[in-house]
Amino acid sequence: MITAEVIKDLHSSDLTYISGSLQSVATKVLPPELADKDVLVFVSKADQLEAALKAQAPIVVAHKSLSLPAHGSQSLPNDTGTTFFQTGSVQLAMAAILPLFDGKMNRFNQEEKIHPSACIHPTAHLGKNVYVGPFAVIGEHVRIGDYATIGAHTVIECYATIGDHTLIHPQVFVGAYCELGAHCEIHPHTTIGADGFSFAPTREGVHKKIPQIGKVVIGDWVELGANCAIDRAALTETRIGNGTKMDNFCHIAHNVIIGEHNVMAAGFKIAGSSTVGSHCMFGGDTVVSDHVTIVDKVIVGGKSGVSNDILKPGAYAGYPVEPLRDNMKTLATFGNGNLPRMRKDIARIIKHLGLKEE
Amino acid sequence: MITAEVIKDLHSSDLTYISGSLQSVATKVLPPELADKDVLVFVSKADQLEAALKAQAPIVVAHKSLSLPAHGSQSLPNDTGTTFFQTGSVQLAMAAILPLFDGKMNRFNQEEKIHPSACIHPTAHLGKNVYVGPFAVIGEHVRIGDYATIGAHTVIECYATIGDHTLIHPQVFVGAYCELGAHCEIHPHTTIGADGFSFAPTREGVHKKIPQIGKVVIGDWVELGANCAIDRAALTETRIGNGTKMDNFCHIAHNVIIGEHNVMAAGFKIAGSSTVGSHCMFGGDTVVSDHVTIVDKVIVGGKSGVSNDILKPGAYAGYPVEPLRDNMKTLATFGNGNLPRMRKDIARIIKHLGLKEE
Amino acid sequence: MITAEVIKDLHSSDLTYISGSLQSVATKVLPPELADKDVLVFVSKADQLEAALKAQAPIVVAHKSLSLPAHGSQSLPNDTGTTFFQTGSVQLAMAAILPLFDGKMNRFNQEEKIHPSACIHPTAHLGKNVYVGPFAVIGEHVRIGDYATIGAHTVIECYATIGDHTLIHPQVFVGAYCELGAHCEIHPHTTIGADGFSFAPTREGVHKKIPQIGKVVIGDWVELGANCAIDRAALTETRIGNGTKMDNFCHIAHNVIIGEHNVMAAGFKIAGSSTVGSHCMFGGDTVVSDHVTIVDKVIVGGKSGVSNDILKPGAYAGYPVEPLRDNMKTLATFGNGNLPRMRKDIARIIKHLGLKEE
Repeated sequence: MITAEVIKDLHSSDLTYISGSLQSVATKVLPPELADKDVLVFVSKADQLEAALKAQAPIVVAHKSLSLPAHGSQSLPNDTGTTFFQTGSVQLAMAAILPLFDGKMNRFNQEEKIHPSACIHPTAHLGKNVYVGPFAVIGEHVRIGDYATIGAHTVIECYATIGDHTLIHPQVFVGAYCELGAHCEIHPHTTIGADGFSFAPTREGVHKKIPQIGKVVIGDWVELGANCAIDRAALTETRIGNGTKMDNFCHIAHNVIIGEHNVMAAGFKIAGSSTVGSHCMFGGDTVVSDHVTIVDKVIVGGKSGVSNDILKPGAYAGYPVEPLRDNMKTLATFGNGNLPRMRKDIARIIKHLGLKEE
Repeated sequence: MITAEVIKDLHSSDLTYISGSLQSVATKVLPPELADKDVLVFVSKADQLEAALKAQAPIVVAHKSLSLPAHGSQSLPNDTGTTFFQTGSVQLAMAAILPLFDGKMNRFNQEEKIHPSACIHPTAHLGKNVYVGPFAVIGEHVRIGDYATIGAHTVIECYATIGDHTLIHPQVFVGAYCELGAHCEIHPHTTIGADGFSFAPTREGVHKKIPQIGKVVIGDWVELGANCAIDRAALTETRIGNGTKMDNFCHIAHNVIIGEHNVMAAGFKIAGSSTVGSHCMFGGDTVVSDHVTIVDKVIVGGKSGVSNDILKPGAYAGYPVEPLRDNMKTLATFGNGNLPRMRKDIARIIKHLGLKEE
Repeated sequence: MITAEVIKDLHSSDLTYISGSLQSVATKVLPPELADKDVLVFVSKADQLEAALKAQAPIVVAHKSLSLPAHGSQSLPNDTGTTFFQTGSVQLAMAAILPLFDGKMNRFNQEEKIHPSACIHPTAHLGKNVYVGPFAVIGEHVRIGDYATIGAHTVIECYATIGDHTLIHPQVFVGAYCELGAHCEIHPHTTIGADGFSFAPTREGVHKKIPQIGKVVIGDWVELGANCAIDRAALTETRIGNGTKMDNFCHIAHNVIIGEHNVMAAGFKIAGSSTVGSHCMFGGDTVVSDHVTIVDKVIVGGKSGVSNDILKPGAYAGYPVEPLRDNMKTLATFGNGNLPRMRKDIARIIKHLGLKEE
């Protein structure tokens, strides 16, 4: 149960209180089409605003482009009985308000913050206010920062470090010596610090394992989705910079260096020793080959294959990758039966001209 | 050790007892080429039937298109010493008979049905005849239906519900508030209810997390392979309808709605807010973009990319997706060195005609 | 802290001691550009050798094509103060030396080799010198070979067998009756022996499960990366031969037979009943369809789709797959805006010739 007052008290720069009672109460958040008398609603279009008002939604957060109805004075209810906030970005407003409705930390609450079934090595150092879930395993000399949460069944091997406020969901693996920064969130079944894939072929065609003695170093505010795998470096560090966010099923090979504030959609894969700058975005299922360099502010569409360096900021897509605008034309040509038609046309022309087949 | 009588007593509409002793005994099931005197064999071709008879297989289940040898009277052994059943679908006959040979539930048997090492919250409700394996974690107010099985190391967070007869293998994650129907089967390392991938970009290019406060709702008779990930909705529900089956490594993003009785092969990925109807099939590694609608009875071949709505039932494939028949022609043109040849031919024609390069 | 003497005492056929003190000591291994006075360095190029010498690296392992500076006699320090080894393959030299610097087994060390929290069935047989980590679950009649390591939270179901010296990392699943050979290494969150994906459609479009009563059989010296899934066979065996190495996220469907000494990069997927010979290599994200045969010594590039048999050794790529050389030309033609240009050229020629559109 959240009051408008609590929202106003967030003092978020992405939210402006406009009008209506600060005692208005919402118990949940739903899309405009499901608005009801106890539902907070975010609206970015006029018809959504109308739906919210019709349903007498108690609190409405509206994009500033919408004109709000009949305001009363700031501290009094407006005519609609709805309390209004305005925002320049509905998404940022959601980022600010939804934590109030997210019971996420309740999942980890338990009678004793450190669950008695957890297996914690006596040399491990746990900061203050750390949660450790049932059956978590925390190895020798591990360091866990203040206010960190370690989910049930998560394994953190020896000498790994976890930053302050980082939330690791259940069933995550963090290998020996790996480092996670502060304010990260790691989803279930993600593997951090398995071996890089590296074998030395003998003359007989047998592959001898090259031990991977490096580690993974992850910055602050990094989020990794479910079932990802970030391999440890051969000798040094596989790195993911501050603020980078990855969806489910991302694969980061050994010695990859990824910069800051990137976004990778589900199934992104990047092979060994490649580097990505900062402020990049990658669509789903895109693959980057090994030893490739991608600079800052590059966008690559989904299902692409990047085999060569991308040294200029911009939007790209395809396999081989080309500027996005070109790729849209390529795809438009490729589909719709065009290719076989082109082939036929060429045969027709050659026949018409009496040219020889080559 | 299964007798022909036990198979007859299944009273399956997909099986007709033809002839031979009901006391015939098989201890295992193998393909026709490995038939032996203790092996039940399914046959759909004449040479398979021959192989089974030559090996004196005790029980043969034959497709009805095959003519069986020299029957005796129904209650007496036939001349071959083999007991015969007929079926209109060997696959359905396998679905009916193989559970008799599948020791799957033996994997979960233990002295005490609820393993003493499991960590079960006192407010959780477990139905009758529930198995809970070692180190399973069952959170506050979870509800587990009758005859459900919860594998070792599986984590079921608070307020989640699991339907009757549902089998969850070891090491599965079911997040808070998620709902699974009855008779489902979920394989290891699958993640149900990790956060949807959603961030609000600031002007500085930083991505602020939008909490995902919705859930996942899965119908009855759903099967999810190993290492899948089904994300919880932003505000509402990610849904998978009754009878839908997914292979390993499927990714279902937040707010996706999937209908009933679909089949998704390994590596199927579908991005946020897309919807799939019922009775569809998707080949391996196919990707569906966000906000796409696919109607009922659509088949999409493997390695396809669906970026636009598919509003007519039928078979499709490719990237961009096109009708399957067209795509087969596109692929036939694309490979085999055709494309470079076409390019050369065009250059040759342009030269021949004395046209200008553009 | 490793001395040159210890390295010499490896008696590796891939290493020749050349000169310098055998008391030289290295505490770590880093790439040449990070060489320092306590760092062992592998060098394959002249500038790397120079960097290592400038940094006074105590031990240098150099490719035999490089000429080493001013040797002293074999048992005395050379002029540089560096101890030199030569190798015909830097990779093989790394495979030989890096285990000395790899603390991997330290991750598994614990006061009691069999962690008291592990849940081991009384009928399971453990060989000598076996490690079992916290919360591991080992089922009825499982057999674990000598010197095997079972990581924390790993589940090994009934009747499975694990060979000598095999290392299973934490959070792995090995299903009932599956067999792993000796000297294997299996990374976290890998699923061995989930059900193959097999359903019998009814006339009503409902899919009935066909139980999968086969198993997985894995040879010796096999490595599986993190988050892989190897499905059990329908009736018989899914097989992976000796020495085959798979990267993260590989998917091996039921009844697949994979030979020896293959290398599969991340995201390799192979559908049901296909077979791969020996000494093959597959690039990342490559998909092989069902019932396909691939012979020995085949290389398939990344992002390829193999829908038909490959019956001749050689290098291939693309979708549809073609000889690698052809595919490089196909890709060169496909990208760079060529395809739309070709289409325009054809239209231009048709217009120029006054041909009818077809």
